[in-house]
Amino acid sequence: MLKDNSVYLPEEAYLSKREFPSIILASLKGISQVIFIENVVSGVIILIAITIASYQLGIIAFLSSMIGTLIGKIGGANEKSVDSGLYGYNSVLTGIALTLFLTGPSQWIIALGGAVIAAIFAAMMVHFMKNSTLPILTFPFIVLTWFMLLVSYRLKVFQLSNTLVPQSLSHWELDIEGEVNWTEGIFNGIGQVFFLDHTLSGVLLFIAVFWAGWRLGLYAVVGNAVALLAAYGLGGEHSLIILGLYGYNAILACMAVATVFSTEDNRFKSISGIAAACLTVPLTASTSTWLLPYGLPALTMPFVLSTWLFLGARKVLPTL
Amino acid sequence: MLKDNSVYLPEEAYLSKREFPSIILASLKGISQVIFIENVVSGVIILIAITIASYQLGIIAFLSSMIGTLIGKIGGANEKSVDSGLYGYNSVLTGIALTLFLTGPSQWIIALGGAVIAAIFAAMMVHFMKNSTLPILTFPFIVLTWFMLLVSYRLKVFQLSNTLVPQSLSHWELDIEGEVNWTEGIFNGIGQVFFLDHTLSGVLLFIAVFWAGWRLGLYAVVGNAVALLAAYGLGGEHSLIILGLYGYNAILACMAVATVFSTEDNRFKSISGIAAACLTVPLTASTSTWLLPYGLPALTMPFVLSTWLFLGARKVLPTL
Amino acid sequence: MLKDNSVYLPEEAYLSKREFPSIILASLKGISQVIFIENVVSGVIILIAITIASYQLGIIAFLSSMIGTLIGKIGGANEKSVDSGLYGYNSVLTGIALTLFLTGPSQWIIALGGAVIAAIFAAMMVHFMKNSTLPILTFPFIVLTWFMLLVSYRLKVFQLSNTLVPQSLSHWELDIEGEVNWTEGIFNGIGQVFFLDHTLSGVLLFIAVFWAGWRLGLYAVVGNAVALLAAYGLGGEHSLIILGLYGYNAILACMAVATVFSTEDNRFKSISGIAAACLTVPLTASTSTWLLPYGLPALTMPFVLSTWLFLGARKVLPTL
Repeated sequence: MLKDNSVYLPEEAYLSKREFPSIILASLKGISQVIFIENVVSGVIILIAITIASYQLGIIAFLSSMIGTLIGKIGGANEKSVDSGLYGYNSVLTGIALTLFLTGPSQWIIALGGAVIAAIFAAMMVHFMKNSTLPILTFPFIVLTWFMLLVSYRLKVFQLSNTLVPQSLSHWELDIEGEVNWTEGIFNGIGQVFFLDHTLSGVLLFIAVFWAGWRLGLYAVVGNAVALLAAYGLGGEHSLIILGLYGYNAILACMAVATVFSTEDNRFKSISGIAAACLTVPLTASTSTWLLPYGLPALTMPFVLSTWLFLGARKVLPTL
Repeated sequence: MLKDNSVYLPEEAYLSKREFPSIILASLKGISQVIFIENVVSGVIILIAITIASYQLGIIAFLSSMIGTLIGKIGGANEKSVDSGLYGYNSVLTGIALTLFLTGPSQWIIALGGAVIAAIFAAMMVHFMKNSTLPILTFPFIVLTWFMLLVSYRLKVFQLSNTLVPQSLSHWELDIEGEVNWTEGIFNGIGQVFFLDHTLSGVLLFIAVFWAGWRLGLYAVVGNAVALLAAYGLGGEHSLIILGLYGYNAILACMAVATVFSTEDNRFKSISGIAAACLTVPLTASTSTWLLPYGLPALTMPFVLSTWLFLGARKVLPTL
Repeated sequence: MLKDNSVYLPEEAYLSKREFPSIILASLKGISQVIFIENVVSGVIILIAITIASYQLGIIAFLSSMIGTLIGKIGGANEKSVDSGLYGYNSVLTGIALTLFLTGPSQWIIALGGAVIAAIFAAMMVHFMKNSTLPILTFPFIVLTWFMLLVSYRLKVFQLSNTLVPQSLSHWELDIEGEVNWTEGIFNGIGQVFFLDHTLSGVLLFIAVFWAGWRLGLYAVVGNAVALLAAYGLGGEHSLIILGLYGYNAILACMAVATVFSTEDNRFKSISGIAAACLTVPLTASTSTWLLPYGLPALTMPFVLSTWLFLGARKVLPTL
């Protein structure tokens, strides 16, 4: 998404042996595109971060990215987009999420099937968002994962993990007790972008981001910090703050609004980025509440909503 | 939607006696447009299929189609669209659904009022979807019917049939026991497009489809078959499979994706059609789960979502 | 929205002392834009109507309008739109709604913060709706307020007023008993546009509308009347009819469809306006039902849905 892609441009349109390396590279970029990076090295570091937390998850992440990339190739998508990994990142997240939130023997097949649909969904969204000239972000992954998890109430083969429990809003009690471990909160924040709550993985993810550019890294750190403070100051549940669940959306929104999708005209882009990061905190709260009766996780919806809000408004309020 | 309409082009723009036959023909085509057919004979066969299952329903279906067509005429819509029955089919489905899911003395009036709004809603959607160049399908009918059924909790005159019961997701138990009667499942599948679970009606509907073209008929049969197998294989409730509730969305999606809205470029259109049919199975499961707390039926939403997914993705992935 | 704005066009693009009066005037127009009026006198009358009902609410309304206008100025929006008050009205409603539905010491700050986001949201919607050429109406206010209220279940600082209680649909009982006080119903209808159920405020609001034009006033009265009758005839809860909760959406929809957004071509615009007003009654019923499990108020969503339905359909059915 950020830089030009000039490594392995295949000479033939059909799939051949000579395209194989280009697919591998595109798949690694697909993993890094989850955090707006088009860079093979960052992709490898992220893949290591995932694999440290869980062997199985690392395999699923890489296979999902390859599936998304292949769908793009076979479907005849714009070659540059496919090679940049833009058909991979929604599949990566869908594959990981379905592996984590489902259980039982068919878990793997469903996760990889989800990766297929995620790539088709991404293509559809590219078409739908064309007129608005806004990026599709991780919207296909979010909506698809919600739908796939709800399937489990009706089809036996889909078995929901017992971490997802539907609750009635009328019996909900907010409990924010407990100490906040700030170090854990910081590294879990970036880890949660890939559903990881493992400190070393968090450290590696920060390295992957800084490798791609210090500016990106800076906004990732800033977005995380303001969100942790905002969540604490507004009285969020301390257990969720420690798990990084108030941080990952803020990191993504801050990077997207302040640097990835900004131009020279956006004079207040740093302020907008910080505001977008802060806004993900109440958005995380309300999205979770809205999904409570269905027992679904908010995923990266707060990031998508906050980012679309600022990027869309910019078309009319250009200084933002 | 499929063929040219060259039968009765009225010479005057206003409603006159000479237009009367054209309105009747457009209304019959409106009934066949529910399954993508623009053909008076198929419309008559379908009307007979509905009337066999219920006298009252046949009258409502025809009157609703006429209402939709009239709204198109009076509103000054594109004449060709009106004469093709494109302002009728959402009204037909709305009229039938409201008659079935409501009860009490005002049931008929509400159903016909719903047919009026369905035609206006269809016009609005045509405008909204213009930029995306995708067909509106049965979206107006679905959303309107959901809204009209929810009204019953607040206005005494709207009386909900006792088949629709809101349930909490936390108390939901999946029970897939029981034998599957495959013959019933097959003919109920197509019958459920018009809310019918009457075997003879199902046979007539298949005849109506084959009359319009063997290719359409073939994909209807294939879509139905793969969905029945997928629903069974994924562990769907056997009672729902027998009722055809996993079949009707698949039939529509398979026809739409594989033939009605496909072009020469779509090399994999048969595969896409079958994939779209399969996808309606988990989509039926998740849509039903999502609507469970409101006690609403999924209607043809799984078909609309699956079809939009593939038709939209095609604009970016042309071989699909 | 209605008339040309030729009062105080600032000569400089940046904020200066000389712009101060133009901001005040734009803020007053922002208050009147809630009911489609661009008129300082009407804005002042409405502000008095609000202040009579509650001192605090009057201050919040004015400050929110100023915040929205300032966001428009600083963001670099189209100057004419800002000076017409089009960046103010969503902020006004958001500020008032959050003050009323939240409680606790941070209530004021949250309300004014909401006004900031409402203006950014309005800008985003202007961009999103550009292709459809439909007005954004009060959509940003509605969705933002719903999100902000749901936050209260997760962040301690947001404290929900105890009037909003989530309820399960399965335990819902409709009770329409009690006498209807028609006079209260009439003046509360227009008052509820600004969340007021104070008869004198209602009288002042009618004066503000008639001051802006007799045609606007006429359709406000007609919309209110047909909705009261429709709500009574369809068996709506009498307590809600008296509170004006079936009236305010109808007033806005009737004004919007019959006059504000109509042209010469729309031959049936009066009938459409009345139909749009009637339609808000079932839409109020179903929106409330849909929101019941979350304990959220319908706000002006029925007005937005009914108005979009008719204005969108008009692009295809021009006589409506």
